[in-house]
Amino acid sequence: MSPVPPSAEPVVSDPEAQLRIWAPSGIGEVCDGDDLAEVLATVLTDLVDGDVLVVTSKIVSKAEGRMIAAADREQAITDETVRVVATREHPGGVLRIVENRLGLVMAAAGVDASNTPDGTVLLLPVDPDASARRLRAAVRGIHGVSVAVVVSDTSGRAWRNGLTDIAIGAAGLAVLDDLRGGTDSHGRELTVTVTAVADEIAAAAELVKGKATGRPVAIVRGLAKHVLDDDGPGARVLVRDPDQDMFREGSAEAYARGWADGRGAVAAD
Amino acid sequence: MSPVPPSAEPVVSDPEAQLRIWAPSGIGEVCDGDDLAEVLATVLTDLVDGDVLVVTSKIVSKAEGRMIAAADREQAITDETVRVVATREHPGGVLRIVENRLGLVMAAAGVDASNTPDGTVLLLPVDPDASARRLRAAVRGIHGVSVAVVVSDTSGRAWRNGLTDIAIGAAGLAVLDDLRGGTDSHGRELTVTVTAVADEIAAAAELVKGKATGRPVAIVRGLAKHVLDDDGPGARVLVRDPDQDMFREGSAEAYARGWADGRGAVAAD
Repeated sequence: MSPVPPSAEPVVSDPEAQLRIWAPSGIGEVCDGDDLAEVLATVLTDLVDGDVLVVTSKIVSKAEGRMIAAADREQAITDETVRVVATREHPGGVLRIVENRLGLVMAAAGVDASNTPDGTVLLLPVDPDASARRLRAAVRGIHGVSVAVVVSDTSGRAWRNGLTDIAIGAAGLAVLDDLRGGTDSHGRELTVTVTAVADEIAAAAELVKGKATGRPVAIVRGLAKHVLDDDGPGARVLVRDPDQDMFREGSAEAYARGWADGRGAVAAD
Repeated sequence: MSPVPPSAEPVVSDPEAQLRIWAPSGIGEVCDGDDLAEVLATVLTDLVDGDVLVVTSKIVSKAEGRMIAAADREQAITDETVRVVATREHPGGVLRIVENRLGLVMAAAGVDASNTPDGTVLLLPVDPDASARRLRAAVRGIHGVSVAVVVSDTSGRAWRNGLTDIAIGAAGLAVLDDLRGGTDSHGRELTVTVTAVADEIAAAAELVKGKATGRPVAIVRGLAKHVLDDDGPGARVLVRDPDQDMFREGSAEAYARGWADGRGAVAAD
């Protein structure tokens, strides 16, 4: 397909019903100890109040010095793991899907070997919600604007092929848009709809940032209605409580545990 | 937060690294037998080659006459179900998470009671990939442009709170962006990254369409690189194969089956 003609401006009467998302280039490599807001300062000069700044977790981790030797990868996964959810053998070893210390259910606990220097892997930020809050405050200090910040990471899902970006950290954002109590277009109460706005923003930003493109940051304009004056709840509220989690174990793991218990129950009779 | 000033145009040098998404108003109620492309014709006049048109499944279903009496809801869920994945009792009845005939794992099989007239519920389109192909062809015929079409629906996820929109139908789109074999910014091969572009597009569009707003369609401009000359694979390829699915049963269901089998194994000894 031919590229988008720069002059092709959509005609939209209502500014509430449009989004712009862009990913600036020119961001250099981020290193241990860097102040992210300073590194990003030159590409964030046109931020306005109500923008959402989406930052790939990778550069947050790098600034926080979360890079370790690749030889320690399996141990790092173990260290980041709170609970093993499911495992599967593959030709190169064992895939571990685990709950990590952030409550995220992820393959390899979110320990990442792409886009890092040879011989290294990258751990997730220590506390991505805190990282988001710090970056939000620093952006306000430097640029004088009130924005929301989302820290995004790439994750697999149950039942569906392909990865999508999700929000693992957030500040200044209504992470969940709770429509319960509102009404639909027929005037009936919406009873179950809570939208994971932060995850949808992370996914939208990934479409622009892409992978391996040297564009680790995206700005989303048009969602001011979801941007808060305070730091808000953070992305941790996206993690489902254990008692609401119907997929707390892989099917094979749950079956095996049941089998052992069922056999044991007979022995105890 | 104050609304976005209309003059706040981002400065982006590379048109490949920006997206615009908008949701036109003025689309009337869709009824059984309507030709969707005709209903949408007046709001799609500024489409250009390479745009992605995201259509809420609800209006596709309505045009296809998939509305049934609400009294038949439980039977409809049963009819749409290929396989029960997990169930949970709640005060109002039993929540059924099932694989439906489209391969989608969804609560209530995707049978929807919101935004429908009183006393009715809505089934998913018969074949959303086919619906997307038909709409794509009709848009080309009316407007003379080659676009991709995504049919989106709202779905829950394992492990995470809140719903996001996903792609249940697609035409003219590289639904999965397979980066395997490419290289990262350090020149190393990307081995595992397949991005679910269609799901990310559905999620991005939801941010603009929202719920209950009378804006069931969004146009995404800036993803021409993912738009195909042919119809492409369709959203069905997003459904994980059973032998790759580690969460084929709910944990409680798998455990119970294991328990019965373990107990039975002893009896057979």
